[in-house]
Amino acid sequence: MTTIGEFELIERWFTRAPRRAALGVGDDCALIAPAPGHELAVSTDLLIEGRHFLSTVDPERLGHKALAVNLSDLAACGASPVAYTLGLALPYVDERFLDGFARGLHALADAHAIDLVGGDTTRGPLAIAITVFGEVPVGTALRRSGARAGDTVWVSGRLGDARLALEAFRGTVDLGHALARVRRAMETPDPRVALGVALRGLATSAIDVSDGFIGDLAHVLRASSVGATIDVDALPRSADLRAQPVALQRLCTLAGGDDYELVFTAPAAMAQRVQEAAATGDVAVSAVGRIEAHTGLRLVDARGDEVSERHAAFDHFRA
Amino acid sequence: MTTIGEFELIERWFTRAPRRAALGVGDDCALIAPAPGHELAVSTDLLIEGRHFLSTVDPERLGHKALAVNLSDLAACGASPVAYTLGLALPYVDERFLDGFARGLHALADAHAIDLVGGDTTRGPLAIAITVFGEVPVGTALRRSGARAGDTVWVSGRLGDARLALEAFRGTVDLGHALARVRRAMETPDPRVALGVALRGLATSAIDVSDGFIGDLAHVLRASSVGATIDVDALPRSADLRAQPVALQRLCTLAGGDDYELVFTAPAAMAQRVQEAAATGDVAVSAVGRIEAHTGLRLVDARGDEVSERHAAFDHFRA
Repeated sequence: MTTIGEFELIERWFTRAPRRAALGVGDDCALIAPAPGHELAVSTDLLIEGRHFLSTVDPERLGHKALAVNLSDLAACGASPVAYTLGLALPYVDERFLDGFARGLHALADAHAIDLVGGDTTRGPLAIAITVFGEVPVGTALRRSGARAGDTVWVSGRLGDARLALEAFRGTVDLGHALARVRRAMETPDPRVALGVALRGLATSAIDVSDGFIGDLAHVLRASSVGATIDVDALPRSADLRAQPVALQRLCTLAGGDDYELVFTAPAAMAQRVQEAAATGDVAVSAVGRIEAHTGLRLVDARGDEVSERHAAFDHFRA
Repeated sequence: MTTIGEFELIERWFTRAPRRAALGVGDDCALIAPAPGHELAVSTDLLIEGRHFLSTVDPERLGHKALAVNLSDLAACGASPVAYTLGLALPYVDERFLDGFARGLHALADAHAIDLVGGDTTRGPLAIAITVFGEVPVGTALRRSGARAGDTVWVSGRLGDARLALEAFRGTVDLGHALARVRRAMETPDPRVALGVALRGLATSAIDVSDGFIGDLAHVLRASSVGATIDVDALPRSADLRAQPVALQRLCTLAGGDDYELVFTAPAAMAQRVQEAAATGDVAVSAVGRIEAHTGLRLVDARGDEVSERHAAFDHFRA
């Protein structure tokens, strides 16, 4: 513990020259103007130690993840990131923690060319509140409500590794050397921002997978008043996850949570354009099912047989 | 404790029909477009139990205050409130707390005709993260950096009652029946939004008093590269505070914090227009000093004698 105060803390770790916003950290408000013909997309997340990350997490990875989960919400709307604000409660001024945390945060912000434009720091149990701003041409934001019968259901990247890592930390599975790989999925997710932007005008709906594939897809189905059949064997997963028992594979892919991949729908005839968007976004996409007029979610395996598993979405007040 | 989950919690306490934003709570992002010719002013605050409020606070007053402190930042920029997001960590789903908190929050939001457009709830130590959005015509936002030698220093409302209430709760002073009055200043501050809007194009600088008059005025002086002489006897204060010893009056007005009044500067010739803006904002304003080219802050009493007190600004990592 040092005698560094609140203003020095902000100055030392969180003040950088703004790239674009009219004002940076230091006035009562930041000023942000979306480009002409655009509107601002806004998302906010609150991360709490013990709920969203383990106390043992590397601070640099935590800085990355805290911003990544917010950028993932922008990706799900097809918005281009512009700026973000940070609220940070810390038990004390821990220089090692702040050095790492700021490094991870700023590195991901730099990768997306966005500014930290405001914030608030205080003493308290470790909590991270980030609000992120993106811009999107008026009327083109991807929403949850546009899925139509006949659309294909797509997933970006791979599902389940973050949950597999969590199970390893919980001691329910021993991954050996594979742990280092799958924990990257849990600790440094890669928000699918470029894919989201490329899906504007193409995807009929989109959401990011934060609470688990089934739970998040269910939000789309409800908002769109449709149903879906999903081939659980088509859900993309890593070789490390494929090496696990089928029941664990299904738990991790269907209800894992913390994936930060995009689930989206597009007309079946647009498969080629979806693949082009995926190439633009530098990520693979997999077709995993079909939207149907009949409401509800039906899970089948590769042979078309119904899968009976029931997996609830992750809920921060129930889990 | 109940078995209410995260989504039901949001639905029950925090979902209302949006008044203006393109989307309300429920998609990955909210969409906000400032009016033509305007930019968005953004401010964020993180409130932690034990630091920013006592565990004994009435939940309805806490809901009010959590939004009020953010609206106060918009007021200091001269921005008109548009929308806000809420991040809320709660140890458990406490229906009595949520009923009161939501009531206080929504009542103040209604008073300013703004929408809750997004948020995040999670289990954790009680923490409230609000980000508020306002709009201001491009180039007219009040800043800290525009004070010029010869300007008059003004303060809205009254200073020091919030600190006086805190001293009463700490047991250093016995206020008797007056406690109920002064604790209102601490628990339900009235953000000076209408005054801030009326000061556009008139005030040369502005800030809201959150950390204490001296500390917050010092931000303006630094940003504007000027100094000031302040008449400490001119600082506006309640009859309850005037009944206290002079040393306590000065502590509370100069370094009290949590006032959420505006300190602003305007050319001396504009005094009449400042009074008209105050009438528009339905709050009294007091001239308390003068901006000078010579840097530094000089405190004098009503006779012009130098006051020697030194009062540090409130610092959440040092206090």
